Formats: sequence, structure tokens, C-alpha cells
Amino acid sequence: LHSKLPATGTTIFTVMSQLAAETGAINLSQGFPDYDCDPELTELVVSSFKAGHNQYAPMAGVMKLRERIAEKNELLYQAQYNPDSEITVTAGGTQALFSAIGSTIRPDDEVIVFEPAYDSYAPAVRLFGGVVKTFKLDPPYKIDWDNVKKAINSHTRMIILNSPNNPTGSILKQKDIDQLIRITKGTDILILSDEVYEHLIYDGEKHLSMALFPELAERSFICASFGKLLHTTGWKIGYCLAPAALMTEFRKVHQYEVFSVNTPLQHAIADYLKDEEVYLRLLGFFQEKRDFFRKLMNETKFDLLPCSGSYFQMASYKNVSNEPDFDLAMRLTRDFGVASIPESAFYSSKTDHGLLRFCFAKKQETLEKAVERLLKF
Amino acid sequence: LHSKLPATGTTIFTVMSQLAAETGAINLSQGFPDYDCDPELTELVVSSFKAGHNQYAPMAGVMKLRERIAEKNELLYQAQYNPDSEITVTAGGTQALFSAIGSTIRPDDEVIVFEPAYDSYAPAVRLFGGVVKTFKLDPPYKIDWDNVKKAINSHTRMIILNSPNNPTGSILKQKDIDQLIRITKGTDILILSDEVYEHLIYDGEKHLSMALFPELAERSFICASFGKLLHTTGWKIGYCLAPAALMTEFRKVHQYEVFSVNTPLQHAIADYLKDEEVYLRLLGFFQEKRDFFRKLMNETKFDLLPCSGSYFQMASYKNVSNEPDFDLAMRLTRDFGVASIPESAFYSSKTDHGLLRFCFAKKQETLEKAVERLLKF
Ligand SMILES: CSCCC(=O)C(=O)O
Ligand SMILES: CSCCC(=O)C(=O)O
Repeated sequence: LHSKLPATGTTIFTVMSQLAAETGAINLSQGFPDYDCDPELTELVVSSFKAGHNQYAPMAGVMKLRERIAEKNELLYQAQYNPDSEITVTAGGTQALFSAIGSTIRPDDEVIVFEPAYDSYAPAVRLFGGVVKTFKLDPPYKIDWDNVKKAINSHTRMIILNSPNNPTGSILKQKDIDQLIRITKGTDILILSDEVYEHLIYDGEKHLSMALFPELAERSFICASFGKLLHTTGWKIGYCLAPAALMTEFRKVHQYEVFSVNTPLQHAIADYLKDEEVYLRLLGFFQEKRDFFRKLMNETKFDLLPCSGSYFQMASYKNVSNEPDFDLAMRLTRDFGVASIPESAFYSSKTDHGLLRFCFAKKQETLEKAVERLLKF
Repeated sequence: LHSKLPATGTTIFTVMSQLAAETGAINLSQGFPDYDCDPELTELVVSSFKAGHNQYAPMAGVMKLRERIAEKNELLYQAQYNPDSEITVTAGGTQALFSAIGSTIRPDDEVIVFEPAYDSYAPAVRLFGGVVKTFKLDPPYKIDWDNVKKAINSHTRMIILNSPNNPTGSILKQKDIDQLIRITKGTDILILSDEVYEHLIYDGEKHLSMALFPELAERSFICASFGKLLHTTGWKIGYCLAPAALMTEFRKVHQYEVFSVNTPLQHAIADYLKDEEVYLRLLGFFQEKRDFFRKLMNETKFDLLPCSGSYFQMASYKNVSNEPDFDLAMRLTRDFGVASIPESAFYSSKTDHGLLRFCFAKKQETLEKAVERLLKF
């Protein structure tokens, strides 16, 4: 059998989570909380399943959930998305990304991806025959937009952005947005904006959603995740926003990829989001976790990179060891009982800055116990 | 914007279900039950959400569910599928079909599709650059395997089969299987077997899963659906079976398409399936519905085609009217209050046999009321 994705193995997230489970290590690798969702949300879920909303949802999503999503984008970004034609509920942020790529990328279309990057972008592009143009970023991960401009040609079809960024914790600033507008003005280059960590942003920074900028929003797919908002990564519910012309194409793929998304959970989430405080509560919640984890980590030999968003903290061990980051991640898991993700896993070309990514979406006691172990390193 | 799927509109299932909702018609169009699932299953779901299984499931599915799936295939088809490497839980049968196609079909690969056909096959093939080779079947929908053999060439990559068949209600017989083995022997043609209606089969017929035939199973993707088994089409949980080499490729796509599937529901379904009676109960349940509906329909002017499987009944109105089937489906919905699907919707080329598809996965009283209305036609 001649593989369509010969270079693809099992994702690093599966590898490290499995190793953590086997060795009993504290799992700060794959990004997910170790605490539960709001019991009120669980109650709404229970009611929804008991109410028997058990058959196919509409293809684009349960209407009241799409209405909540529209309200949120109005509230946070003063953006109008029409629930009928511009919002689609998806089986998680990953499916939103995949359908956006699948509905627009043809053989030989070029797609710009900045690395380090979440590992689904490039294989999804390649599956549809697209060509990935990688821009490799080194810490502090600033984008050189002039360089990007030089790479743009008549084949350039899409730029994939991810802010707040997984794994770096960096965010796009207004000057990035200005440059992005400048270099894409007058082109028909699409933007695929992975904003699944939109609510995890720190120190009073504002998330610069593509939805805020009409010149960008008019050719953007914005992908979002309820898993991150509700601490329920295993429910696999997210959504995509796009102007109607793009959303029409998106739905053609979506309807044949999954047709629709879990109905009872859509009802429950819609009911829960009537309380718009949900969005605001999250800010303080994760700021506290980030601060707490950074303070603990400052006692270790690791040097911390800035973390402006996401629930990931990059930490350097360069002062202590020259070990490859993958080897150290394995060794820390096995010998010290803390699992992390090596930064190199997010690059397609051999790269090693001596950095590990730790997920801090964990209970205080989990973070304390983990850092206690890391202190021995 | 230059569409990748220019011929694709909104699926007929959405069109008819919406019209039914708007007009208050009884909806026998889109295939889904109007009764609820087993309350015991709901209880297991409630416990599962309360237990807090709310984070990412393993990419291939919760292990105990994969084990249940393996047991079922052993029990019903004496087939051994390894839960580790040959079973993957998917976001419904549709996602299983899509990932199987996406992981194997390259530009210019030919895929054989028999029509009438479920509407996701052809667009999924085309999205990945494949070429759909359509075999048009007329009632009684028998496959001419010699004809198929003549169409096989070095580009032929896959044959898509669907038994029990949506929309025709026909099933593959042993002589079809024999022919299929004959014409594919020695080739590397893959089989994509849509078996989502495997448990809905009548009059003592046996479902001939590809899993029963090692010569076919060794190059088959088998797609199945818990929605059909549990009367929960809106949960969007299904699975795919394939030999390890194929499953490796399948998972490469699956992991970037959705990554994983709803965790709490996987736990609940696994617990529910400990009782293997679930499979057997279904047989009698749907046989009764089919018999009941056919008996009622015999009083109308419609002539019924045979229905050996699925929850769909094809009915001819040729004796009464020469109206195009789409027009009649609309008129029956608007003027008589019963929604159905016109058979022509399942063909890519203009075809009209004067047939409508009715879904009988409905309460007795729903079927009675619907047929009362159809008696006026
Ligand atoms: C879908 S598994 C990966 C979760 C995640 O986003 C990460 O750990 O980077
Ligand atoms: C996924 S919507 C279609 C349901 C169904 O299988 C049908 O009505 O044919």
C-alpha cells in the first residue's frame, strides 16, 4: 500500500499521553484540563439527553447555538455573523480546520504555515494536493512579514494563523495585523485563523480575532473550540465562522465529512451560553493558573519564555543540558515523572532550541506536584 | 470563488426535512427514528457525563468500546478485528466513509459507485481528485457484475458497496459476493462497504458483511453506525473496521480530520453493549415496523417494491401519475402532509422511475397517521 501521508506517524500528543499513562507520570503534555467542567453545565447536559434530542441536528448546527455564537462575536468583537449562512457547528476545532482546507485547497495551491505549528495543518493541506510553504520561526517567534510578502505568488491560496499560539504562547499584535492587511490587500489569499485559544490571553492583552478587521474577516475562516471554553476537550464541539460565500463551500465539505454534530450537547451548550459571563470568567481563571505555574517554575532550573496566551508554557533547559528535546522529554517522563512535549515536534525540519512545552490547564495540586518533581532536575 | 464542488447544493435530506418542518408534514423523508432510545442507555449516558469523562478520548477510540466492537464482529460474523490496530471509532458512519476515501483516493483514481446511492460517496471521492465511475441500476437494482468487470482497469482503486441499501432496501446475496470475489481476485482494488444498516434486515435473511469473507475483508473498509443500532442518529458515533495496513492509513486522516470522538458517549455505549441482546432485539423490532408499514401501504394506490433491509420503503406511483418524482414529493408534503424522498435524488444523471422513498423508523401512530393521509392520494 502506497501511503498518501508517508511521513505521518502517530501524533506526539498520543505518544506522550500514552507514555505518561504507562509510567504514571504527571501528564503536562497533551493539552487538556485535569479538572471537570461546571456542574451546572453537566446538569444541562443531563437534561438535554433526558429530553431526548437524540436525532440528527441540522447540518449547520442547532439554531439556538448558532445564535449564541453570533451574540458572542457581536459582544466580544463587534462582528456580525449571520447564523443562517455564516456559522457552522463542527466536530471540534480540528474538523473546522480540516473542512476549511478541504473546501478551498486544490492540487498545487500554496499554503503558508508558520512553524512551530499544530500538527494537523500540513497533512490536511497535503491530503488535498496543496503545497505547504513553511516559515520557520525561532524564539521569540516573531513573523517577518516582508519575508512572507516575498514568498507570495500566483499560487498562494491561504495563510494559516494561530493566535494565541500553540505551542509558543505568543499572540498576534496590532502591528502583525497591519502587515497582514498590507501584504494581502488586493489579493484573493484566504486566511485560516485557528483561534481555539481566544479566551486564554493574559496581562490585559486583547485577542485580535480576524473578526475585528473587516478587510481580513471578508476572506477568513475562523475556527473556534468549545472544548477550550468549557474545559471539555473530549466533547469535540467547535465551530467555524466565515462570510457566506466561503461558508457555502465549507458546508459542502462539512455535510459529507460528518453531516452534523452531536445534538443533545449542542442544546446544552446553547443553554449554558445564555450567561455571557462564561467568557469573562475564563480570563481570570487561566491568568491565575499561568501565574501560579510560572511562579513555581521560576524555582527550577528551567528558563521560561514569555506566555501571552494559550494554556502552554515553553521552558528552556539550555543552561543545564544539551540533550535533544525529544530525549529529554522522554527522560523527564520516565525518570522524573513529568510528561511534556518537545518543541521540535512542532517543526517539519530538524530544529531543536532546547525547549519543552508544559500544559498548565491543571489543578493547583497537580502543578505543585509536577514542579516538585522538576525541581530535582 | 471557484467552487471545488460546483454541482453540490444542499442535501435533499435537509431540503425535505426543512419543508416538512415548515409545512407541519409528517416527516418520512430523512432517515431517523421519531421514538427515543432505551432509557437504560440514557441512564448510562447520564452516569458517564456525571463521572466526568470529559477530556480527549484516545485517537482510535475508548478501548473498552473497541473491545465491544471486536466482540460483536466475532459474535455475528466470526471475524477477528484487533481493537488496537483494526478498529477506529468515528464521528458517525459518514466520517468513517470520508476518512476511508480520503486516506486512499488520489487524483485520477477511479472509484466504482452503484446508483441509486447515498449522496456523500461521489463528492467525497471528487474532493480528493478521484474519478467516480457510476453504474446506474434500475429497479430491482441488481448488479451486473460482468459489466463491472469490463469497467475495471489499472486506474480502478475502489468499489463502494452499501448493503442493506439506502435507498432501495435491497441486499447483497451470496451470488453477488461470489462475483465480487471473482472479479477482484488478484487485483488490489479496495472495497468500501457501507454497512450502517447491518442490523436492519428482514424475512430471515442474513447480512453478508464483508467481514464474513476473508478474501474480501483483507481489502475492505467496513463502516458502521451506532446511530442506527441505538436509535440515536444525532449522537454521531460510528466506527470503521479494516485490516491493520489499511487502518494505519485511515487513522492518519482520522487524526487530522477530527482527532477523536466524544468521550462520555463512548463510555456509555461500551457499557450498554455488554448486553449482546441489543443486536438481536433490533431484528424483530424493525421487522415489525416494516411489516406494519407495508400492510398499511397496501391499502393505498402505491405499489411497493421489495424491502429486504434498511428502514426505507420504495413505493411506485406510476399507476396513478406521470409526475416527476421530485414534484410529487413536494406536492405530497405540501398538500397531503407527508414528506418523502424522491428516488431521483440518489442518481447523478436524470432518472425517474416514479418512486418515492419512505422511512418507516417511526412510531406506529406516526405511520398510521401518514398512511391515512396517503390514502387520499
Ligand atoms: C487534539 S490532541 C492535542 C491537543 C492539543 O491541542 C495539544 O496538546 O497541542
Ligand atoms: C445524514 S442525513 C441522511 C440520513 C439518511 O441516511 C437518509 O435519509 O438517507
